[in-house]
Amino acid sequence: MNIGGSLPPEEPPTIFYVGQHETSRQPPVSLNLLSQGQSLGYDFLTTRITTAAFQSRVLSLASEHSKGIQESSNPGAIPAPLVSPLTPEDTTLVPEDSNTSLVAIVSPWIDLGSTDPIIAHISRQVFNLEVAYAAFCGVNNIVVHGPLPDADVMQYARAIQEGLGLGPYLQLHILLPMTGELETEYDGDAHLSDLARGTQNLEDEEEPEDDLYGTWNAWNTIRTLCNYSHKLSIALELPRQLPPLSLQSRWYSEAVRLLLFPRTTFIRNAKGYPVLSKAHQQLLTRFARLRFAPWMLLSDVGPIADSNPSTTSNTEPEPTPAEAASGTKDKPKDPVSHLRYLRYLQQSQPSRPPIERFGQGYQDYLQSPLQPLTDNLESITYEVFEKDPVKYEWYGRAIAAALKDLSSTIEDQRPLVVAVVGAGRGPLMTRALQASQKTGIAVSCWAVEKNPNAFVLLQHRNATDPLWAGQVNIVKSDMRHWQGPIISGETAKVDIIVSELLGSFADNELSPECLDGVQHVLRPGHGISIPQSYSAHFAPIATPRLHGDLLSRAGADKWDIPYVVMLHQYDYLSVQPDSDTARIPNVKEAWSFSHPIAPAKLEHSRTRAGGGVGAGGWVGGDGSNEHNARSCKLSFKCRNEGVCHGLVGYFETVLYAGSSGKVELSTNPVTMDEKSKDMISWFPIFFPLKTPIYVPDGAEMLGKETDARHVGASFKPEAWVYDVTEHV
Amino acid sequence: MNIGGSLPPEEPPTIFYVGQHETSRQPPVSLNLLSQGQSLGYDFLTTRITTAAFQSRVLSLASEHSKGIQESSNPGAIPAPLVSPLTPEDTTLVPEDSNTSLVAIVSPWIDLGSTDPIIAHISRQVFNLEVAYAAFCGVNNIVVHGPLPDADVMQYARAIQEGLGLGPYLQLHILLPMTGELETEYDGDAHLSDLARGTQNLEDEEEPEDDLYGTWNAWNTIRTLCNYSHKLSIALELPRQLPPLSLQSRWYSEAVRLLLFPRTTFIRNAKGYPVLSKAHQQLLTRFARLRFAPWMLLSDVGPIADSNPSTTSNTEPEPTPAEAASGTKDKPKDPVSHLRYLRYLQQSQPSRPPIERFGQGYQDYLQSPLQPLTDNLESITYEVFEKDPVKYEWYGRAIAAALKDLSSTIEDQRPLVVAVVGAGRGPLMTRALQASQKTGIAVSCWAVEKNPNAFVLLQHRNATDPLWAGQVNIVKSDMRHWQGPIISGETAKVDIIVSELLGSFADNELSPECLDGVQHVLRPGHGISIPQSYSAHFAPIATPRLHGDLLSRAGADKWDIPYVVMLHQYDYLSVQPDSDTARIPNVKEAWSFSHPIAPAKLEHSRTRAGGGVGAGGWVGGDGSNEHNARSCKLSFKCRNEGVCHGLVGYFETVLYAGSSGKVELSTNPVTMDEKSKDMISWFPIFFPLKTPIYVPDGAEMLGKETDARHVGASFKPEAWVYDVTEHV
Repeated sequence: MNIGGSLPPEEPPTIFYVGQHETSRQPPVSLNLLSQGQSLGYDFLTTRITTAAFQSRVLSLASEHSKGIQESSNPGAIPAPLVSPLTPEDTTLVPEDSNTSLVAIVSPWIDLGSTDPIIAHISRQVFNLEVAYAAFCGVNNIVVHGPLPDADVMQYARAIQEGLGLGPYLQLHILLPMTGELETEYDGDAHLSDLARGTQNLEDEEEPEDDLYGTWNAWNTIRTLCNYSHKLSIALELPRQLPPLSLQSRWYSEAVRLLLFPRTTFIRNAKGYPVLSKAHQQLLTRFARLRFAPWMLLSDVGPIADSNPSTTSNTEPEPTPAEAASGTKDKPKDPVSHLRYLRYLQQSQPSRPPIERFGQGYQDYLQSPLQPLTDNLESITYEVFEKDPVKYEWYGRAIAAALKDLSSTIEDQRPLVVAVVGAGRGPLMTRALQASQKTGIAVSCWAVEKNPNAFVLLQHRNATDPLWAGQVNIVKSDMRHWQGPIISGETAKVDIIVSELLGSFADNELSPECLDGVQHVLRPGHGISIPQSYSAHFAPIATPRLHGDLLSRAGADKWDIPYVVMLHQYDYLSVQPDSDTARIPNVKEAWSFSHPIAPAKLEHSRTRAGGGVGAGGWVGGDGSNEHNARSCKLSFKCRNEGVCHGLVGYFETVLYAGSSGKVELSTNPVTMDEKSKDMISWFPIFFPLKTPIYVPDGAEMLGKETDARHVGASFKPEAWVYDVTEHV
Repeated sequence: MNIGGSLPPEEPPTIFYVGQHETSRQPPVSLNLLSQGQSLGYDFLTTRITTAAFQSRVLSLASEHSKGIQESSNPGAIPAPLVSPLTPEDTTLVPEDSNTSLVAIVSPWIDLGSTDPIIAHISRQVFNLEVAYAAFCGVNNIVVHGPLPDADVMQYARAIQEGLGLGPYLQLHILLPMTGELETEYDGDAHLSDLARGTQNLEDEEEPEDDLYGTWNAWNTIRTLCNYSHKLSIALELPRQLPPLSLQSRWYSEAVRLLLFPRTTFIRNAKGYPVLSKAHQQLLTRFARLRFAPWMLLSDVGPIADSNPSTTSNTEPEPTPAEAASGTKDKPKDPVSHLRYLRYLQQSQPSRPPIERFGQGYQDYLQSPLQPLTDNLESITYEVFEKDPVKYEWYGRAIAAALKDLSSTIEDQRPLVVAVVGAGRGPLMTRALQASQKTGIAVSCWAVEKNPNAFVLLQHRNATDPLWAGQVNIVKSDMRHWQGPIISGETAKVDIIVSELLGSFADNELSPECLDGVQHVLRPGHGISIPQSYSAHFAPIATPRLHGDLLSRAGADKWDIPYVVMLHQYDYLSVQPDSDTARIPNVKEAWSFSHPIAPAKLEHSRTRAGGGVGAGGWVGGDGSNEHNARSCKLSFKCRNEGVCHGLVGYFETVLYAGSSGKVELSTNPVTMDEKSKDMISWFPIFFPLKTPIYVPDGAEMLGKETDARHVGASFKPEAWVYDVTEHV
């Protein structure tokens, strides 16, 4: 049991926060235009920070400097050009309360990654002036175009890193396409880079290579240099044709805070209205379910009319090829048909699966696993566990099947002895009593609980619940010290021991140790443990969000402990072949446990306990728990390059396998739908890596063989550093 | 300027959270009784955790043990009695959603501080069982009676400390009277302590000494042992006759989370309705203004009728002496007249003074001072400063007075040169222009600002503000590097330099260094600096709340830096004599600065700068700032015992003293009403002490003479450890 013990909040309605962007909107947005946009239904508008006059000023500065260099006999003596502070001619942006509804766009005509040092120098100055001034005016969300295809990405990244320090509440969004080049290209006629091309007499531009992950790679460089800063995020432009699911998932795992929809992303439906393809809708829904869903930005979908016509561009956009082909361009004259469509999608979002509804607000929220063995749980925590619609139902089936199988085996007609160890508030006991009723097989019921507070409730329930009807024997004891049931004055053995001691990674809440400890009361020969067996499974993942979260936390041991977390914003690094439409991850089994263990093993363990045969074994202490030590060595083939931030862990368990088949639970995404769909009791576990590992295309991640499971402690992530080998 | 740069939220309505307590209500509260209470208007009820049956069980256990000891020939061999776990007979409390509306009362018949080890041992077991079970059931607010008058307080405190670990969300409230003994005394007939009295054959109880601070002293022991835990607080019982204001203030500074009003606290008005005295109302208002105002608990003001009469006590309370005397006891049959009166007080709370309205939500919230010299402020921060209704008005008066005095001195008819250094968005420049208009004295205006973003706004304002009308000369420069105004092509000197560089402790934002740095542009002989002088003042305070807050923070340097904070929950340790009705603190001046400084000093400093005459002086660096070093040695006489957690700092400044009198600002509580009432720009500064200092009754706190002000750094609290000497 492992969701961390807090009750989930109500499911809130889906809200899309939608803005409007126009590439050709030159001067800063007027108050009037902003209120026009808001009355059309937009939540925010984008605005340039500086005017065309500023652009001219800077471009002349650059070209004069360039001319000076060319004409000088000693170009090295000419100092780099200095962009002087902003004047009222350079910007019409001023501090206003309404500025919180603006997203600022840094001048798209600069080139922070230029290989021409003068252009890079001027670009940095413009960038710094603009970002500082926008932040000063209270516009803290600022979009800056990503590096150009021929840019020096490290240099670009250093400029961004410097920019992050320009304001305390600043959020810099890097505008990036999913792959290739931006649709939302700057189409003005004067770009600083033109100057470089002019002076450096470049060869004809090469066609960019077909490098699917190129843009992601640049982003990876930028955010790594900026140390996963929370102030740095992505304005991701969605193309008309989405790239493969693997690349979509990669972007989904990154810090996307703005989703940009150029007009060309939309297709037209039969009535000529703009709509998104099914694939786009699916991606949108995925993003909308994040704890902090990205804002949406409609780009060049039609201008907002300012009542002062001199301050806005009135040029109608060119028809897209689709529009021209269908001839529908002019039909719906609705200026906000794109916005209306997004609002329609907002209303009609599919409802979330049970575990997401249950965990709403806990997406990507790192929690420490419970320690039910050392801490006494509170009633509310039990109550949360008991809400699971699947888990207890499956336990009930398992108990009924075990009762049937046992009763057909046993000769005498005595009632079967069922003990729930760690009974909590009694949900498993209720299932056992129901199973007895349903099968007509008489049982003698024993509930063992160490928590003195839950013990009071169990007694209450036995006295008041008509199903229990006083027939349950309630024992206050740690299960490991229980002497077993006393029936007719004599110590008896138990036929079925039922427990729910599994953690998110199966054995990580010490289920093996507890069940070994109570096995002495189980009837030798045919006694059954429910669960009968369980296994731990894991997969390497990329999760920049959780890595950034951990980086910003205090605590010396933060990298050394696992976390329970409802993972959302992550990407599997290794997926099964031929699964690009469904994207089935490679999740591999680490190890398993089954109960009861062989009597000889138990005997052996007991002999070692207390130093009886000397402190042997490598598993700490006296070696009495050595049979529960596990290790594994697995490798994961990664088709696409990526960064591994840690391992995600799941479990599977066979509650009971008998004559009528298997009853199983699973949180492993590969098998959970088949084995226990809609179970909500466990979130996955996450083992972080302090130093993320870069994995090249087609590489194989190899686990080192180490003593990965120690007695009493779960899985140390430090033992899980992977080697990476390239296999081309 | 120092409020930390965030806009304050709206003033919320005052809300009293009021509960009902009955000392004789024995069994746990039923759902039915709770809903009765809520329909009467109570927000919560108190409940016992265990039943009378449990009490009998424990008392027999204790008396049997005691008998066993008495009858045994070898009493040392008898083990201490063990209270077995709770059973359904011992408690009727079960987990319910409605339990959040309950406050649990630990059985009042235990004695955690008993000097009888057996009674203490049994009491601890009862306490632990009850607290753990209440927390398990979701009742996390738990009241426990404070130590009895003859208790071992350290032993009591250790039991409480252990109890704090019994639940993660637990809040333990220690029920204490302000002084002397509780009104809300347990009046049951069986108390564990009676047993001790019986066995130990105690002498007649002594009358408790007249020890006004005795209860506070016990609390101080408890919370110090519990290391100022956030989970530990006070349920403070208000007596009918309030103690002196000094003791009221002391309690006010402590972690009071529940205010208990016994029926005897109320007096009757002419119509016979229960009301509180003016003094009680004032104390209540004070508590109600805290960021987390205590809940209120009406005790024994009349029972709530449960429809199941067997579960509630129906005994009418005895009339109080006041009721009996006035014969009004039976008149108003309203069962909730006390509650109704508190709701009336809730509605009619006086509105807060301006600085509290402005800082609403920031009470006792520690902020780091701004660093305007190293960081560029944002527009919103300037905007907050400009909201001050007093400060800029006073600056305007000072400028007008200085203009008048200067113009009567100067022979030639040239305009007077006024420079605002650190002009921000221009509020002081506006005041200077208004002063010129009002006095009819022509000025030449210069605004110097280093922040490039504010510089854009200053230009905007000069172009658009009709008062500025393009006449202001705007210079982008650090004031220390400004060469001075250029008038008619020549460098001129400035007649009046206006600045607003003061921090909460006067010089702590480096005003002296900045004004020294710009003094070279001031006209020698008659040039005026506004402000002309300023001084830092401080007082030792008790503030357990801030000390606890700092204890729970991370950060190695947290004790070594000052904080800007709107102090609420604190107490002055040293007050002026004969002021117990008004409680005027002893606030003493640490040091002062005035401008301009003597030309010789400035010259001397300049000679030293850059190592001209060798790196001399003790004030770090080259000694050029040695003239701004300050130290002081002050002592504070403390009438009542207490604990000093740090120093609170204020400032006073003379903006201008001329022929028409002084214009002053002050945040010093002793002088602020007289000098600048309702000014909101500055919160006090707080210098924490890592190790609180206990101050005995009538002691004197002596400041060590140290180099308390270093160049560039403000005041190090480590230099302010005080010696304490007792003077009886």
